[in-house]
Amino acid sequence: MPFTYNRTVRFQDTDAAGVVYFANVLSICHEAYEESLEASSINLKDFFASPSVAFPIVHANIDFLRPMFVGDKLLISLVLQKLGVDKFEITYEITVAEVVVAKAITRHVCIDASSRSKQELPEEIIQWLDTNRRDAEGAERRKSREIM
Amino acid sequence: MPFTYNRTVRFQDTDAAGVVYFANVLSICHEAYEESLEASSINLKDFFASPSVAFPIVHANIDFLRPMFVGDKLLISLVLQKLGVDKFEITYEITVAEVVVAKAITRHVCIDASSRSKQELPEEIIQWLDTNRRDAEGAERRKSREIM
Amino acid sequence: MPFTYNRTVRFQDTDAAGVVYFANVLSICHEAYEESLEASSINLKDFFASPSVAFPIVHANIDFLRPMFVGDKLLISLVLQKLGVDKFEITYEITVAEVVVAKAITRHVCIDASSRSKQELPEEIIQWLDTNRRDAEGAERRKSREIM
Amino acid sequence: MPFTYNRTVRFQDTDAAGVVYFANVLSICHEAYEESLEASSINLKDFFASPSVAFPIVHANIDFLRPMFVGDKLLISLVLQKLGVDKFEITYEITVAEVVVAKAITRHVCIDASSRSKQELPEEIIQWLDTNRRDAEGAERRKSREIM
Repeated sequence: MPFTYNRTVRFQDTDAAGVVYFANVLSICHEAYEESLEASSINLKDFFASPSVAFPIVHANIDFLRPMFVGDKLLISLVLQKLGVDKFEITYEITVAEVVVAKAITRHVCIDASSRSKQELPEEIIQWLDTNRRDAEGAERRKSREIM
Repeated sequence: MPFTYNRTVRFQDTDAAGVVYFANVLSICHEAYEESLEASSINLKDFFASPSVAFPIVHANIDFLRPMFVGDKLLISLVLQKLGVDKFEITYEITVAEVVVAKAITRHVCIDASSRSKQELPEEIIQWLDTNRRDAEGAERRKSREIM
Repeated sequence: MPFTYNRTVRFQDTDAAGVVYFANVLSICHEAYEESLEASSINLKDFFASPSVAFPIVHANIDFLRPMFVGDKLLISLVLQKLGVDKFEITYEITVAEVVVAKAITRHVCIDASSRSKQELPEEIIQWLDTNRRDAEGAERRKSREIM
Repeated sequence: MPFTYNRTVRFQDTDAAGVVYFANVLSICHEAYEESLEASSINLKDFFASPSVAFPIVHANIDFLRPMFVGDKLLISLVLQKLGVDKFEITYEITVAEVVVAKAITRHVCIDASSRSKQELPEEIIQWLDTNRRDAEGAERRKSREIM
């Protein structure tokens, strides 16, 4: 099951075209990421402010399918995927009233926060990734569950 | 009773000093205002996007008492006050774990959205103001209620 | 020659990790786009606020190569490409002291602003695209000019 | 002479009402403050990211006189004032085509960045304050200079 996050579109998210400013949709995705970390008992202050290990975004992409308006009730679902020993990827799907309005991806690399050199993902992140992962094994498990 | 709004501090709210960027605290206050409008059954899209009557902010002020960090659980309480036929004011108090971290005010004037000339507050706004107002009459009424 | 835009990183662009917040880099790219439109004598207010024809972003992607810090002097260069009768793409490269720190793309579709149906690119946009385009024909023409 | 900063209103500064979002005007003022620090040879990265001495804003207020639109050419002029040994205030005036559109104030206190206890303003800040200050003494000195 993907993790889900509910978010009302705020006035400050919008621009003079009357819809959510494109880059703000990625910020809303990042909020969903923060919320999922917290749901996995990760302390946001330790994680983001002056950490020893950091997870900067090295790539992001987003497709906009429909405009979002102030007051819209967004549902953001995110799926996690480990990409080797020092990387992970988050896939986001944003819906309004069950209609997909945007899809995005952020790719993160694990680094030592002071030297900025790559590092293996720590245990708490591997556990977090495991809670909402998308992979062959996960698909298998879901299939088995459905059969039962 | 003031209206209250819960808000977790997000990574994007912060700056390189590790705390919430000052102007973003006013944006968080505005979110509380939006939430209170919605709680009063006002449609945010009609209200903010292409309305016939608008309520631009003509004045804002804010005092910062303590820094706010990513992950902090903010409680924003707001109190409303009618300031004549075409104006109202919102007073915000932000607390973290029952400690006041910031206090702010926004003052709004009612205008015709196309001509931008001043206009009397419409009925739905007078009702909304009435739900969380702070004034002598309100205090009186609360006192009477307590006696009863 | 690509169009270039100079931009100093501001405190508000940064986050608690001490570097520019990822989504803000796309906003900085969009500023460069606005600047190039203006350089092509397009009125920004007519273009973005209540236009008859709009150019919403349908796709964006970005690669982050190095962190950007407050005070950094960014140079954003952008290259334009027509993608059929109703679409165009902008490629951005951001450098600091001649080192590439990020690369991004935004893809825009031309729509009628009220019906939101697709529409052919208007003449002023075709001219703007022509000023900084990237294509075989453009390369040819530049070559001819150099010979002369 | 006050320090001045030129700034074009960007699409991302605006909201669904078609004008600059109120809190963003304070961010634009802060940009002018950053620009004036830099003009006084203060390194922004040392100043804002991981400094030993910081200058958090303890109070801000702003009056909005006219709406600002995307593409508007803002001129922000700022005047500095020392408020005792550990405090200073910046007064901002924003004009568009010589018409005042907003006026703001930010009040800053000098603290030790790690202990967060108050501290005397360092020499480089006193010098910076001196370049664009507003006070009786400054007016006197300017008068003397004009006579000489």
